[in-house]
Amino acid sequence: MQIPNDQILVIFGASGDLTYRKLMPALYALHHQKLLPTHFEVIGVSRTTLSDETFRGKMTEGIRAFSEPYHLNEAKVQEFCGRLTYHAMDPADATSYQGLKALLETKLDRGATNIVFYLSLVPSLFGTVATNLASVGLNQEVGGFRRLIVEKPFGYDLASSHRLNDDLHATFKEDQIYRIDHYLGKETVQNLLVLRFSNGIFEPLWNRNFVHHVEITAAESLGVGSRGGYYEGAGALRDMLQNHLLQVVGFTAMEPPSSMAPDAIRNETFKVLQALKPIREEDVPLQVVRGQYRAAQVQGKDVVGYREEPGVEPHSMTETYVAVKFFIDNWRWGGVPFYVRTGKRMPISVTEIVVHFKPTPLMLFKGHQEQTCCNKLIIRIQPDEGILLKVGMKQPGAGFIVKPVNLDFHYDELSDKHLPSAYERLLYDAMLGDSTLYARADAVEAAWRFVAPIQRVWAEEKASLEFYPAGTFGPVLANGLIDDYPEGWHYPCKNLGEDGQYCAL
Amino acid sequence: MQIPNDQILVIFGASGDLTYRKLMPALYALHHQKLLPTHFEVIGVSRTTLSDETFRGKMTEGIRAFSEPYHLNEAKVQEFCGRLTYHAMDPADATSYQGLKALLETKLDRGATNIVFYLSLVPSLFGTVATNLASVGLNQEVGGFRRLIVEKPFGYDLASSHRLNDDLHATFKEDQIYRIDHYLGKETVQNLLVLRFSNGIFEPLWNRNFVHHVEITAAESLGVGSRGGYYEGAGALRDMLQNHLLQVVGFTAMEPPSSMAPDAIRNETFKVLQALKPIREEDVPLQVVRGQYRAAQVQGKDVVGYREEPGVEPHSMTETYVAVKFFIDNWRWGGVPFYVRTGKRMPISVTEIVVHFKPTPLMLFKGHQEQTCCNKLIIRIQPDEGILLKVGMKQPGAGFIVKPVNLDFHYDELSDKHLPSAYERLLYDAMLGDSTLYARADAVEAAWRFVAPIQRVWAEEKASLEFYPAGTFGPVLANGLIDDYPEGWHYPCKNLGEDGQYCAL
Repeated sequence: MQIPNDQILVIFGASGDLTYRKLMPALYALHHQKLLPTHFEVIGVSRTTLSDETFRGKMTEGIRAFSEPYHLNEAKVQEFCGRLTYHAMDPADATSYQGLKALLETKLDRGATNIVFYLSLVPSLFGTVATNLASVGLNQEVGGFRRLIVEKPFGYDLASSHRLNDDLHATFKEDQIYRIDHYLGKETVQNLLVLRFSNGIFEPLWNRNFVHHVEITAAESLGVGSRGGYYEGAGALRDMLQNHLLQVVGFTAMEPPSSMAPDAIRNETFKVLQALKPIREEDVPLQVVRGQYRAAQVQGKDVVGYREEPGVEPHSMTETYVAVKFFIDNWRWGGVPFYVRTGKRMPISVTEIVVHFKPTPLMLFKGHQEQTCCNKLIIRIQPDEGILLKVGMKQPGAGFIVKPVNLDFHYDELSDKHLPSAYERLLYDAMLGDSTLYARADAVEAAWRFVAPIQRVWAEEKASLEFYPAGTFGPVLANGLIDDYPEGWHYPCKNLGEDGQYCAL
Repeated sequence: MQIPNDQILVIFGASGDLTYRKLMPALYALHHQKLLPTHFEVIGVSRTTLSDETFRGKMTEGIRAFSEPYHLNEAKVQEFCGRLTYHAMDPADATSYQGLKALLETKLDRGATNIVFYLSLVPSLFGTVATNLASVGLNQEVGGFRRLIVEKPFGYDLASSHRLNDDLHATFKEDQIYRIDHYLGKETVQNLLVLRFSNGIFEPLWNRNFVHHVEITAAESLGVGSRGGYYEGAGALRDMLQNHLLQVVGFTAMEPPSSMAPDAIRNETFKVLQALKPIREEDVPLQVVRGQYRAAQVQGKDVVGYREEPGVEPHSMTETYVAVKFFIDNWRWGGVPFYVRTGKRMPISVTEIVVHFKPTPLMLFKGHQEQTCCNKLIIRIQPDEGILLKVGMKQPGAGFIVKPVNLDFHYDELSDKHLPSAYERLLYDAMLGDSTLYARADAVEAAWRFVAPIQRVWAEEKASLEFYPAGTFGPVLANGLIDDYPEGWHYPCKNLGEDGQYCAL
């Protein structure tokens, strides 16, 4: 694997939980795999006063607690911590940046010429920090790159994300900005692309001539738990659909990229988001279902409803479920309905894409086919990652019964290799300048533009909130969304290959 | 299942081996499954003088020896034998047919109005018997059907099969004639049709735009054994390719039939045979490879060569292997090479169709793909019947390796039901008037017409005979036939899903 060029990583928000639990273990894992450059230093930045030693001690703790056991090696951990220093400053205070600059210059003198700034901060500080960095010239790519990684969420609606982009673009160029957007790991994205574009047989079928509809499900079995306070301000539309599910739509529906270069791929996913047919406000009640889980018994245990969760308003209108029917207005997909849904407290945690192909033009075997009429390709993203093609075959023996059978492949048949954690991958990619998994300004805004009418209608309470019992696949009303397909939604089970609304959990 | 109308079955050649080993056990199996009509009698006809009792006794023996154990039930066997009578006569003697007619009339009076004549005789007698039957009016469908089942081989070249057809057509109409041609069981044919025409995803790909080439293999691990004398006059071209393999080609390449009616299907397979691009005599050495196995060690055992087999000439030029490259000159298949091969003393016994799809137009993952470049659909006819789709997937983890993986389905997952034997199926179909598995005159002649130039070139010894060691997949020269595909022939293993020239046997 490629080793990034020498560089310095500055983490703003170094005393926070993300640095402790995710970033440090990820960086350590890269160190352990010898994927870090020789000259690589991490400067933790935060308002708290800490010595380098205390900072290192704390980070060592985080690494020990949150690393994969097979990475852990005390000597290596100490070696890695030698790369860490700490610098106390207030990121919001413009005057403190001269000190940061001076510090970086002493380090740059020693060999590394590149800097990545990681903003593990509240989004309201993104613009401020960018401006402050620029005020001392730290946005200037003199003798090396300057990159800015910003954490999600990237805005809460179209206007706010647009302002955020304006603020960043005032001082940094788009190709310096890395917006974390990693619902699909690089592995999964690459799998999707390989499946679609390294096989001659799928691409000819991958369009409105042969596809009846596409279904994307991201279900979680958990409720909001202790995150009720946060979730009240988010909801399924913002938390999952606007970013993650539309990202899956992008990779599923994109045209073949001209190469595997990050921007070649991002150009194509952006074109999909741009082509999403806007939902008119009056159609929101017809094309969108919002739901909220209520108390129920799940596998014999009492589970509280969303409104009873800690931190949640007793009359909260926040959705824990959303399903949307929409179209992509381009030559490939015109007229093909896409159905996406996501929810909490579903029967299982599963993410999958189901491509439903059209029925045969002539039912040669009419009267002999079981209800399940059509070919489906299921791309299981998690768990039990794999693909499954449902085809009709004749049941052996007398009579003439066409039965749907499974042609399936499970990823675990291929390898049991270490799969890098999301942050390990993301940090490594940013160091290398690979932005495939990072969101581009235009794509972020296109996605917000698409959900804007839904947000408006909901804000004005012009659409109902449907309740569904915890442990089910969402409100009954959502069944009506798929009106042109008698089988309705595909009900996944834990294992790829099993399905049905009442499968064992 | 449907019960045929009342009828009488007259078997010419009733004292022969086929009647004893195949026909009687098949009829008994139908009886045991209650698939025979109430009025159903079998009249055994042969020159030998036998009493009904002796005939029944002998047939009982055959049934006991060659039935599936789960069918055997002594009371049922006796019940079935009550349906049998014997009539001694010389089928070649025209004067003896008045007696047969009188016998049948007494039986017809008792209810059954339909007659099937089964000609288990040498082909040279087919025309004679038909003429003799007609001389007493037994070809006339008065008050019921009269059907003629003739055994294979149906001619030994175009001229002889044409003469045979003329002889039969002089007295019987084509729809009264049932030519045994059952390499593909009804089950397999139906499976192929269901796979192709009940699934929306295969048909769009099933043509020259997406298929690179098609490969059909029928390999046998055995040699000619005690049948050397017969085989000397046959050879792989006549014994397998002209009839059986071209039948497989017909079902693989046919257009969708307008219904599942026998003639709707036979019309389409005939059109394929009609469209086979004639091989010019000068191209025979380029498109056809003939081979003969020579002595070798197979799995540690010494195996004799074909020329050393009993009944075989020491300088025999009879081929035990043939491979042909050809084209189908129609809109669907123009320009797509078809490769068929069949041979004896191959490493395993296997029959399968491999549809090789074209590579992707752009190799997005160039340099990352393993040698096996393209999607293949393998339809395994026997053993381990099933289908397998080879697709490229990304190997998980670092790097970017596209690996071919298998999406497979094995028929034994669906059912362990009793599968009827070939003759059980064929007799039952003929009783019902279902001619799907029987060859039509036009199709038989079209197939002979296609192999005629090969027969001519070989007869004049204008093409080489290639020797291959027993236990291999044929002569090295055959590798050169597939010139546009670096991987060459697909090497099947016993189990669907494994492949490779050196797989375990």
